[in-house]
Parts: sequence; structure tokens; C-alpha cells
Amino acid sequence: MLRSVALATFLSLAALPLWAQPETRLEELHGKKILLFTPHPDDDTFCCAGTLALMARGGNQIRIVIYTNDDKGSYDPEMTSEHLARIRMHEEEDACRILGIGKESISWLEYHDGMLEYANPRDLVEEVTRIIRKERPEVVLSIDPGSEYVRWHKTDHRMAANNTIDAIRAAEWHLYFPNQLLHEGLQPWLVPHEFYFYVTDKDANYWVNIDSVVEKKLDAAMAHVSQWEPSIHHYRPDWDKADLEKTKAEMRGHIPKKDGHYVEAFRTTTGFNQE
Amino acid sequence: MLRSVALATFLSLAALPLWAQPETRLEELHGKKILLFTPHPDDDTFCCAGTLALMARGGNQIRIVIYTNDDKGSYDPEMTSEHLARIRMHEEEDACRILGIGKESISWLEYHDGMLEYANPRDLVEEVTRIIRKERPEVVLSIDPGSEYVRWHKTDHRMAANNTIDAIRAAEWHLYFPNQLLHEGLQPWLVPHEFYFYVTDKDANYWVNIDSVVEKKLDAAMAHVSQWEPSIHHYRPDWDKADLEKTKAEMRGHIPKKDGHYVEAFRTTTGFNQE
Amino acid sequence: MLRSVALATFLSLAALPLWAQPETRLEELHGKKILLFTPHPDDDTFCCAGTLALMARGGNQIRIVIYTNDDKGSYDPEMTSEHLARIRMHEEEDACRILGIGKESISWLEYHDGMLEYANPRDLVEEVTRIIRKERPEVVLSIDPGSEYVRWHKTDHRMAANNTIDAIRAAEWHLYFPNQLLHEGLQPWLVPHEFYFYVTDKDANYWVNIDSVVEKKLDAAMAHVSQWEPSIHHYRPDWDKADLEKTKAEMRGHIPKKDGHYVEAFRTTTGFNQE
Amino acid sequence: MLRSVALATFLSLAALPLWAQPETRLEELHGKKILLFTPHPDDDTFCCAGTLALMARGGNQIRIVIYTNDDKGSYDPEMTSEHLARIRMHEEEDACRILGIGKESISWLEYHDGMLEYANPRDLVEEVTRIIRKERPEVVLSIDPGSEYVRWHKTDHRMAANNTIDAIRAAEWHLYFPNQLLHEGLQPWLVPHEFYFYVTDKDANYWVNIDSVVEKKLDAAMAHVSQWEPSIHHYRPDWDKADLEKTKAEMRGHIPKKDGHYVEAFRTTTGFNQE
Amino acid sequence: MLRSVALATFLSLAALPLWAQPETRLEELHGKKILLFTPHPDDDTFCCAGTLALMARGGNQIRIVIYTNDDKGSYDPEMTSEHLARIRMHEEEDACRILGIGKESISWLEYHDGMLEYANPRDLVEEVTRIIRKERPEVVLSIDPGSEYVRWHKTDHRMAANNTIDAIRAAEWHLYFPNQLLHEGLQPWLVPHEFYFYVTDKDANYWVNIDSVVEKKLDAAMAHVSQWEPSIHHYRPDWDKADLEKTKAEMRGHIPKKDGHYVEAFRTTTGFNQE
Amino acid sequence: MLRSVALATFLSLAALPLWAQPETRLEELHGKKILLFTPHPDDDTFCCAGTLALMARGGNQIRIVIYTNDDKGSYDPEMTSEHLARIRMHEEEDACRILGIGKESISWLEYHDGMLEYANPRDLVEEVTRIIRKERPEVVLSIDPGSEYVRWHKTDHRMAANNTIDAIRAAEWHLYFPNQLLHEGLQPWLVPHEFYFYVTDKDANYWVNIDSVVEKKLDAAMAHVSQWEPSIHHYRPDWDKADLEKTKAEMRGHIPKKDGHYVEAFRTTTGFNQE
Repeated sequence: MLRSVALATFLSLAALPLWAQPETRLEELHGKKILLFTPHPDDDTFCCAGTLALMARGGNQIRIVIYTNDDKGSYDPEMTSEHLARIRMHEEEDACRILGIGKESISWLEYHDGMLEYANPRDLVEEVTRIIRKERPEVVLSIDPGSEYVRWHKTDHRMAANNTIDAIRAAEWHLYFPNQLLHEGLQPWLVPHEFYFYVTDKDANYWVNIDSVVEKKLDAAMAHVSQWEPSIHHYRPDWDKADLEKTKAEMRGHIPKKDGHYVEAFRTTTGFNQE
Repeated sequence: MLRSVALATFLSLAALPLWAQPETRLEELHGKKILLFTPHPDDDTFCCAGTLALMARGGNQIRIVIYTNDDKGSYDPEMTSEHLARIRMHEEEDACRILGIGKESISWLEYHDGMLEYANPRDLVEEVTRIIRKERPEVVLSIDPGSEYVRWHKTDHRMAANNTIDAIRAAEWHLYFPNQLLHEGLQPWLVPHEFYFYVTDKDANYWVNIDSVVEKKLDAAMAHVSQWEPSIHHYRPDWDKADLEKTKAEMRGHIPKKDGHYVEAFRTTTGFNQE
Repeated sequence: MLRSVALATFLSLAALPLWAQPETRLEELHGKKILLFTPHPDDDTFCCAGTLALMARGGNQIRIVIYTNDDKGSYDPEMTSEHLARIRMHEEEDACRILGIGKESISWLEYHDGMLEYANPRDLVEEVTRIIRKERPEVVLSIDPGSEYVRWHKTDHRMAANNTIDAIRAAEWHLYFPNQLLHEGLQPWLVPHEFYFYVTDKDANYWVNIDSVVEKKLDAAMAHVSQWEPSIHHYRPDWDKADLEKTKAEMRGHIPKKDGHYVEAFRTTTGFNQE
Repeated sequence: MLRSVALATFLSLAALPLWAQPETRLEELHGKKILLFTPHPDDDTFCCAGTLALMARGGNQIRIVIYTNDDKGSYDPEMTSEHLARIRMHEEEDACRILGIGKESISWLEYHDGMLEYANPRDLVEEVTRIIRKERPEVVLSIDPGSEYVRWHKTDHRMAANNTIDAIRAAEWHLYFPNQLLHEGLQPWLVPHEFYFYVTDKDANYWVNIDSVVEKKLDAAMAHVSQWEPSIHHYRPDWDKADLEKTKAEMRGHIPKKDGHYVEAFRTTTGFNQE
Repeated sequence: MLRSVALATFLSLAALPLWAQPETRLEELHGKKILLFTPHPDDDTFCCAGTLALMARGGNQIRIVIYTNDDKGSYDPEMTSEHLARIRMHEEEDACRILGIGKESISWLEYHDGMLEYANPRDLVEEVTRIIRKERPEVVLSIDPGSEYVRWHKTDHRMAANNTIDAIRAAEWHLYFPNQLLHEGLQPWLVPHEFYFYVTDKDANYWVNIDSVVEKKLDAAMAHVSQWEPSIHHYRPDWDKADLEKTKAEMRGHIPKKDGHYVEAFRTTTGFNQE
Repeated sequence: MLRSVALATFLSLAALPLWAQPETRLEELHGKKILLFTPHPDDDTFCCAGTLALMARGGNQIRIVIYTNDDKGSYDPEMTSEHLARIRMHEEEDACRILGIGKESISWLEYHDGMLEYANPRDLVEEVTRIIRKERPEVVLSIDPGSEYVRWHKTDHRMAANNTIDAIRAAEWHLYFPNQLLHEGLQPWLVPHEFYFYVTDKDANYWVNIDSVVEKKLDAAMAHVSQWEPSIHHYRPDWDKADLEKTKAEMRGHIPKKDGHYVEAFRTTTGFNQE
């Protein structure tokens, strides 16, 4: 398959970075449909919370689709997966609310934590293709299936990264999953802009200045109480004030900066890249 | 497993590029058996048409094995997959004819476009191993499962890339798929030379000068009418003359050059690389 | 999921190399439980024999877990897979004995050579998670699922590399495979130190000086008689003296050196890397 | 698992027929939610059209869920699967309209004809469980996974038969697919009455008198134009009057009778049968 | 494959019942190794508790292997799967203790309730083959994959039934899973006697008089507290006395009788039946 | 899907036996194409050798397709699977030669014994569909996926039985596996007559008198030396004369008789049965 716009790329792979200049600035979008895919209900917060807050402020319609229910990551011996899934759902809703996104904007694909890799890959692409064709987003954000980064990407992250890209490609052509058009009336959709988070320094080519929303990002991160000490070891639903301040301070110190500003980094592309 | 010729590599991975010097120049082969694997019926044209034309001119026996039938990539709302598969088959036959390769030299593995990833991987290796043992080629060309390149390789490309390499390895040892020897009389075969196309700049280590056949390459590319505007949006089986000239000119401008010559790039290796 | 120790990493991927400083030196360990996973019964010898010899000398308890039985890699037309599996088992036992490791320390996962990729991945992770939780090792050694290296990693090597990492992650959380705790009494286990062999120059960050055991390494490698000429073509269980000396000399010449010393290279990490 | 109501059955399988007395007569239901699962969009017509017409007349809410799109069964050499799927969808809508069921009451699961067997069975159960929990039907009708009948049941029919039964069982217990409750608010649902069509004489234990709607049944059957001669060989969307009358007469002659009345046969059960 | 003892069967299937005469009476065995496979930790109690009590009394070594952990079958909205698995494990241990079987005699295969069907079937056969070869039982008891009965057998029951039979066959031939011999020293084992429970009236050909242990059977059944009302709806770990007496009485009334005696029914076979 | 000839059946399953009258007598066929599918290379001999001999004598073109290589069924501890596969291939060739069928008429699908169940079912149907469309047989013989018989049918037998039926159905419709037409020129084929062997008494509806070829059948059966004592325990390629006579006599005594004649039994059908 060949998109003619991508002709240069097809013949000369070296040209790739050249045409990857984003014509769209996420932080300046207004009234657009934004679709974000995240492996777990915290990856979006840690990687994109600032950008999400800016896009929410811009009056964009944001839909967050979460692959897994994150029901494994607790050291608390009394915790069960069913309980943890419930906790993680509410924490994600809290985090999103802080960023200006209502819980009706969150969709859960309901896979279990650490088990996404074992889903049927064809069906998973079909499911996400359906979502893209329904939402018809101006922008998709997802986790980067980047080059060097592959060793960190096993299981949920790798599967989510590749799956979203595959679905973006399939969504564009009506002959993929044609029953979606026939039985559900879903037209194909070519995603205009893709931004990938969880990106290596080497691959990042786009940064969002989040100075104005960095406190919201910190608060959203803190809303994931059960992901942090001490709650990750002995679950409690709220923070002790001292713990909260200490954790927030530590996190603030680690938020990446560029030219003196807090940023979130992305790899963006507008062209031929799923071939 | 250990090929003793690869001893240095095994112990010191840094040595890899050193022994990758091709002793065989594709463009100088005569009367050899060449086997090319391509994910779709156009990847071979876009990446190797010049080289194929040179090898056909050299009197080599070329067999082209195509993993998928490319039955998805059309924006034409009237198109069906069955119809598109027929179109793509004839276009590939036309493209090959232009390069001097008859349609009896083309084999189709009959997978559907975008669905190769979901084939049974063990069976797919067995199927391609059988082809290699039957053909006993001097040279195999295939798509590169290269390092950085992995993000472009999802689905058909990645699956085809890895699968061919796995089959090259399996073909060499009679204990892989031993029924092929027992019931079909197929002896193991060690592929002497491997050339991978669709290669990154960083990995390319071999270039074929295609100056003398660049027009053939352009004509072959144009034979894939349904892959280009306007046919990709509203199918027509032939070109309007003006569209043809414009598209050809644009493509000519994008063919990679090296030292002032039109080239096709490859990564070649003769040793231990499937371990 | 988020280990708080990995906070910096999570927010800024560039920081990764900084905290990868090994606090533990393999060659100085005493009385520790060491767990090594190897795709085939010779990868451990070729990559780690010296280090294994040093750790055995240090009085550590070493368990070697071998994913496949290596029952395909012979050119001998009279060889059968059942016979080769038996040969390879005894060769591995011989090699380990030379390094100071008894055969009761070897566990076989019993997959067939070249077929590990086709195992059920969820079950394979569960199986290795069980082993980690039973052994509770101070150090795990395994094959590196490294970045650029991915093209050499198809089938057994890639599957073994990714699978071990996935199991290391799963072993840590009691909600992965909770029946192991309920029905077998296996508590979760966080592996303190990971060392990956079969590493690229670019990724290596730890080297063991094996000067004092290089002869043991050579002898152990020679114990894999059926992997070398002439036995790989016409099986014989022992060496002709001249062949042995020649092969050993050739191999000695290829063992990597650093600062004038024979070394074995690893990538080590102690933190967040399976996310 | 054990439903205590089924105690007798559990201990003595011979008791099964005794408690299978239907307390509910399909033809007398009013204002109930009815859920029918059919492998293809014509099995429901051929087996249940009369009963459906009676239930529609009774003011029940009927939802028809169709596993496959029936896109293979044409001898017309010009037919494509995409085209046939469209035809079959419209024919089913026509047939249902004749029976008094609007097209908004039809749901398509979008599997391809003859390929249901190869769907991921766990996911298919989950999907149908979700539908049952959403619809909360008083009665489920589905194809019978009956005893002797198994040889006619391969592929779509067998898979649909078993899958519906599995989903009926799963729907009842909240611990199956608990994310449906957590993320979608779907409560478990115990299906009170099950009726299985496509039943052998030996297994049938319930008959609906369809005398009053037999013409509707014939008309609905005729609406599946492409399933009959001559359209099945050379597609035409409508009937020649003579063909129509002849086919209808032939079919009328074959509708089963019991005690002089046209009937449709079922196996019904209200108790323990999915264990 | 052909066991010569089964020659008559092979040529004339009608002869089957004739040679199925059990030479071995379960209730008269002493000092034998008995191996029982059950889908869930209660099927063995409901179908075989009396027979198990008699065999335990006879001084036989009984091993009970349980495919699933039965972690789904509760209506209690507060129940989680992890909790239910723990409950069911202890209830099974209690039931076995009542029958004279210690908890060290129970092995759990750790599959989740309702999910056995989705296990990798080849691996599941391998796992059970290993158990048979280790235990080398005189008698295997398992759930019957009987003829008419297939519709009750979906998911766990069908899978367990077929899987045990497949493993019995595989265990007999050393060329199935030959690594079990090579790496674990497990010799093939031909199971002398097979008894299948959960059998239809039509297939039953063997009955055990359980008059002398019927109270033990009732007590063992009652030990599965969470399987009965009211605990199945609102979990409590013990019985109210009145509930207990009522449930026990009801169950007593349903235990099958033959010639005035309480019995448990089986289908037994000693010959060729897995072909 | 609906074949109109099968209308009666579709509406009333009770009618099945009525139209199953064979219009074709196997033993009277001349110059026809016959296609037989057998799970192992001896099932055809034991069930159909007489019929095969009669059809070979009738000048029919017989193709025998064997699903598995039968490489497991030996008790000889020195046997390996590779060796056994070779033995079984030659024995089948010998048996066929005795019946008048040359070894060029035998095709092997190359699956391993006992592992057919684990093949990819969709691909296996596609593979056998291709064979049917290539051969275009007047008659297909295969193993019966009969009703009561299902318990003997696990693994290879059940899989082969169902798979052949599925392929017979798929072969008839060009929209199944349409690439076989497009890329290989294979037209759909409706198999006129189906005969199923390995049939229960209850299902058998067709018997071939094999009086005139019963000695050939016995000789063919004896050609499978490694399937009988003593060779099955300690392999020897030939018979001791006394053993041979004794085994042959025993087998002769077990060949089914009907009305005083040696027979082979089948279930035959000409109509709608794969729905």
C-alpha cells in the first residue's frame, strides 16, 4: 500500500525526520476531537497530564481509552485484583477530573494488567479500529513503539503501542473490517495527526510547555494514590499530608525541562509510518 | 546452535559489520537461482525493480514469492477485496513483465493484506522453508527486520521480515520439518547469500547502481496503477497520460542517489545472523 | 505500575543509564542463590562460562534453567532429534561439571529447538515466574532483549529474552498468578539484580575479568562436541586431539578483551525496566 | 458449581427429562424481553419464523443477534463476499419486517461465514455474556448443541450453539468477566428460560403451533431470495412469480406437522444444563 | 496406532460393550495407587465420595488432581475470585479429610473456573501425561466424555474429560513428550483400568454400593459450604444446623439407588478407547 | 446457507435417513476419481482395504491423503519418531501396492501423530479444500464424525473427521478461500458422494461385500508390520512366519460379516450435511 504523499519516504527512508514537522500544535487546539490510548490508567497522567490539561482548557473533546484495568500492581498482601481494579478506576477518574476531563470521557477496554500481550491481536486491532472510526479524531495520542525503546515495551506497553498504530492504519481503509461500515455505518477515517508519548530522547521531536499546568499534573499524579508509597504496600485511599508533600516535591524535581520550562515530550508524525 | 564460521561473531557481537562484506555482486550474477520474498505485490517493485531488471538481464532464474494479496489498500468506495486482489495480481504481473520476469515466476502465498501477522507463525515458517528447499537459491532477497526500523515493521512487513529469516535458518538443518525430506524428498539448503531491502541508511551496506534500468523501474512502478492517484481513489485500470508523466517525474526525483548514480540499497550478510 | 524508586526514569527516559550502576559484582558474590536462564544448552557456556566458574568458585548456589533441548542443530544426516537431544543434554552436563556446577543444578524446560517462539506465551511466563518464586535468587542472568539487537533475536533467543524479563516482573507482584501462592505457597519475589548476556557493544555496561578461568571456559566450550566441526557434520562423541587444539586456539583468539584482559560482557540493571 | 435447584440432576443424570417441563409458553408471552441468537441470518427464519411472528404479535421486545454475516453461500461466480454480506443483511431485515420485527432489533456480531469456529472462544463468550447482561431477557432462543446432532454442527453451528450456552452460564455469575460490572455497570443475569431450535426429533420437547402465521413464515423464508434457486446461482434481487410460487409450495409441503398442525420444534430447559 | 488386544474393536465397533467387563472392583482394591482427575473441587465429592471413602478404607494411595480452582461460582456480591479460590481449596481439603484422604494428596492444576477450555490443549495433555507417568496408577478415575452427554460437557467438563483421556493415551507411548523420559526420567505408563464418572444411564456399566459410607458422602458434600444455599448467596463459612439437616436430607433423597442400595455409577473400560 | 435439494432436511431433521440412499455403489465404479482421507497410515487399511482393492480393480484413480505420519505408536524403547515415520511410510506404501495402488497416489499432510488436534483449524480446512478442488473427486471417503462415536474421536480422529467435512463444504463455494481460484485457478467443486468409515453399527447404512478381496485386505494389514506384535515392542521389519499366520488368522476371525459375507461398513450421504 502506498499513500502518494509518502512517496519520498517509501523510496528513501533517510528522509523520514524531514517531513515530520508538526503543523498542528496540541496546546493551541480548540474544539477538536482528541483520542488518547493508554496501556494503563496512569501512563496518560505521568506522560501527558499537562498536555491534557491544556487541551481540556482549549475546549477540545477528549476521549481517553484505557487498554487494561491495572489490577496487578500492588504489594499489599490483602489486596485482590477485583478490589485493585475498582481502586484504579476511581483514581483515574479523579486524575482526569483534576485535568478537566469528566469520567464520561473515559472508556475501558477491560483487559487485565500484564495480559494485553495475550489478547487476540487481530480482534484487538478491530476493536480499536472501531473506536477510531466512531470518534473520528483530529489527533491520536498513544504510546510510542519506538526503536531503541523496544526492550522496555514488552507486554502491555508494546502491545498497546503496536496495536494503536495498526488500528490507525486499518481505520483509514474501508476494506479493513468492512462489516463495521455495513452493519454499523462506520466510515473509514484517516487520522490527521499522531503524537506518541513515552518517547526516548532520541526520538522526541515535539515538546509541550506545561509550566502553566504543572501543579495540575502533580495533583493528577498524586490522585493515583495506590501507585505510590506507602499505599502501594499497605493500601489506604488517601494521603498523609507529609507523605503527599514529599512525594510531590520529589516528582516535581524529576519532571523534564527544556530551555528552563517544564515540558512533556512526544514523537509526532503526520505521514506514512505504519506501512 | 553454532556455525563454526561464525565463531568470532558469537563471542564478540561488535565484529558483525566486519565480515558482512559481500563477495557476490547481484548485478554480476549469471545463470543463478534467485529467490525474492515480498510482503505485498509492490514492495519488490519499489525497492528492487532495478536490481531485478539487472538480474533478469543476466539470465538468472528469478522466483518472486508474495506473502499477501494486497487486497485492502484502496480508497475507492466501490472496491471490494476480491476485486482488488485480482487487480493487484495483474498489476504485479505487468510490473514483472516489464522487468523481464514472466508471470510463471510469481508465487502467491495467498494471505490477506494486513493479516499476515495473524497467520500461524510456525506453519508460515514451515511453508517458506519448503520453498527454499525446493528452489535451492544462490541468493535470497527479503525485507529487512532491521534494528531501528522496527516501528515501521508492524504487521505484514515485520512478519514477512522475521519469517523469511527464520525459514532461511530452518532450511539449513534437516531436523527442522523432517517430513519435508521424508515425504517430499526435499534436502536441507544453506542459503549462501542474503540481501535485505527496505533498509535504513544506518544498516545499508550494499548499493546497486540502477542507472541503466531506471526507466524500467519507473515503468514497473507505474504498472501498479491502483496504488497511485487518481486510481487509488476511483479505480481506473489505466493512466491518463498527464497523470502518468507527472507521477513518474515525481518518483524519479525521489529515487535515492549515491555518488551521482541512481541506486537501490540493501543490507547484505553471508554469515551467522539468525541465531 | 510504578516502582517509586524508578520515578526519575518514568518521567525522563534519558536518565536510564545513570542509575544502572551495578552495586553488586558477580565475581565477588559468596553463598548467594544465582539463577541463569539460557535459550539453548550452549549459550550459557559461550557467553557466561567464565563468570559461572568464578561464581561456582565463590560458593554460590547456581541453578541453570534451559528453555530448549537444542535438538535440531546438526548437519549429520543420520542424526535424529531424539538422539541429538540426548547428546546435547550430556554435553551441557559435562560443560557445567567443568565449571564446577553439578548436573542436579540443571533444569530443562523441555521445549524443542527453534520452537520456543510458538509456545503459549502466557503459560511460559507463568512457568518461569514459578521458578523465580521458588528459587528466590539474588541475581538473575538471562539473554538480553536489547535494542539494536532485535534482528538476531528471532525465535528462541527473542522469546527467551522477553519471557525471562516478563517473568521477573510478574514474580514481584502477588496478583500475578495468585494460585502459585494459594496452592503452592510461593511468595512473590523481587529480583534484586539482573545481568543480561549476549549483549551488544553499545548496551554493555559491565564486564567480568575471566583471565583466571579462561581455560575452563575453553574446556567447557569444547565439551559441546556436537556443536563443532567435524562432529556437527558426522557425529562423533569425542575429539580428535588435533581438531581439539585447533578449535580451542581459534576460539581463544576470539574471546573479547578489555584493557588487556579476557572478559565477558553484560548489561546490568537494578531498577525499573520491565514496564 | 452447583445450583441447588439442580440437585437431583447433579446426582442422577437420568432425571433430566423430568424437570424439563416448560412453565412458560412462548406463544403466550406478552411484553417480555426475548433474545434470539442465530448463526446465520436465515437459520432464525427457517427454524423460528412462526414463533417469532407470534411473539412479535404478543407485544414482546425481541432482539435478534446474528453471529455471522453469511457472506460465502453463493454459487454466482460474479458474487463477492462484500456484496453478498450486503444482500444477506437486507434480506434478513426484510424477513424480520414481515414477522413484525424492525431492523433496529437486529444486531450483527460481524463474523464471517464459516469462520466462527476460528474466533477466539473466550472473547466470543465474553461478548455474548455482555449482550445477555445488557438485555436481561426472560427467554433466550438459540441453536441446540444437541447430542446426536453433533455431526451437523461443525463450524458456525456448533460454535454458536456452544458459545451461547457458555455465555448463558457466565452471565449468571458476577465473577465471570467482572470488568463488565465495574466499568459498564452490567449486573449478572440468570436467564429464566432457554429454548433451543434446530433440534432433533429425539431431543424435541416443546412445539409451537404456527398455523396462524404459516404464511408469514413462508413469506419471510422467501425474503431470503439469494438463498434459493435461481438467485443462488445467478444473483437477482427479486423473484420471478412462478419460481416464487413453486418454491413456496415446496417449502409448505416440508414444514413439520404434529397432530395435524404446522409446528416449530424446540428443546426447552429451565435448569442446570451448562455445568 | 493399534493395541493388538483391541483388534476386535478396531474391526467391529459393535463389539465394544462386550469386552468392557471390569475385572477390577474398585471397592476391593488394597494398597493400590489410584489417580482421580476432577474438573472442579466438588465434582469428585458429588460423584465419587462414597467410592473414595471405600478406597481410602482399603489402604489405597489416592491422589486427587483438580483442574480448576472453582473461583467463579458464587452469587455473593462481596465475593472476589481470589477469596473464593481460597474458600474452595479449604472446603475440598475438608471434604477429602472426611473421606480419609489427607490434603497432601491433593494437587491443583491452578486453572481458573470456566477457563479450562481456553488452555493450550497440547500443553495441558503434556502436563497430565507427566502426572500419570509420575504416579503410575493402577486405576484412573475421570469425568466421562460420553456420547449423548456432550451438551452438558462444554468448557471445563468437556475439556477435562477429553484431556484426561488424551493424556492416558499419550502416557503409554514413550514417543509422546519424549523429553519427560530424557530430562525427568519418566518412563511411559499404560493405565490398566479407567473408570469414568458423571456418566449417563445409558453408558453406565459399573456401580459401587456405597451403603456403608453414605453418611461420609453426605458430610463431605456438606463440607462444600459455599456451594449451597444460603452460603452461595451470602457467604458464611459454616452451617446453621437447621439448614444443614434440611440440605443433607434433600441430598440423601436424590442419591441414586440400584437394587435398593445407594450407588455411584461409572463407565469402565480396560481396552482400546482413545484411538 | 441452504442447498435447495436439502429443503426437507432443513425443516425436519427427522427426514435425514430417508434421502441417504446411495445411488452410487463403490464396488461398481469405473474410471472415477476417488479421494480418501485417513488420519493415520493404517486406518484406511483396516477400514477400507477391501473396498480400495475393489475400486482399484475397477480402474478408478485413487488418491490417498494421510493427515499424520503416525510417528508415535511404538513400544520399542530404541525407536525414534523420525525412524518410525520412515517405517510407517514404507509400510503404507507396501499396503497400498498390495491393494493395487501405487505410491505416487499417496499424499502426506505431514502432521505428527497425536498432534493433528493442535493444528491451526482454519489453515487445515484451507489445505484440504485445495486438495478437493484440485482432485475434483466423484467420491470422498473419510473417517466418520458420527454421533455417539465422539468419545473415540479425540485428537487425530476427531480432527480429521471434522476437518474433511468442513473442507467438503468449503470446496463447494468459491467465496471460501477465493485466492485458490484467483492465484491457482482452482474452481469450486461439489463432492457428489461421501462415504464415511470407522462407523458405528447405529450409523452404518452401506456395506461393501469384500469376499473376493479379503486375502488382499489381510495381506495389506500385515504389511503394517510395526503396528503388530512382536514388532510393536521390538521393531523388526519383517514377520516370523508363525507370528504372521497366527495374527492373520486372528484378524480374519474379527472381520465383520453381514449375511454370511465379509463386509466393510460405511455411512454414506449425498445431501445436506455440513450445515
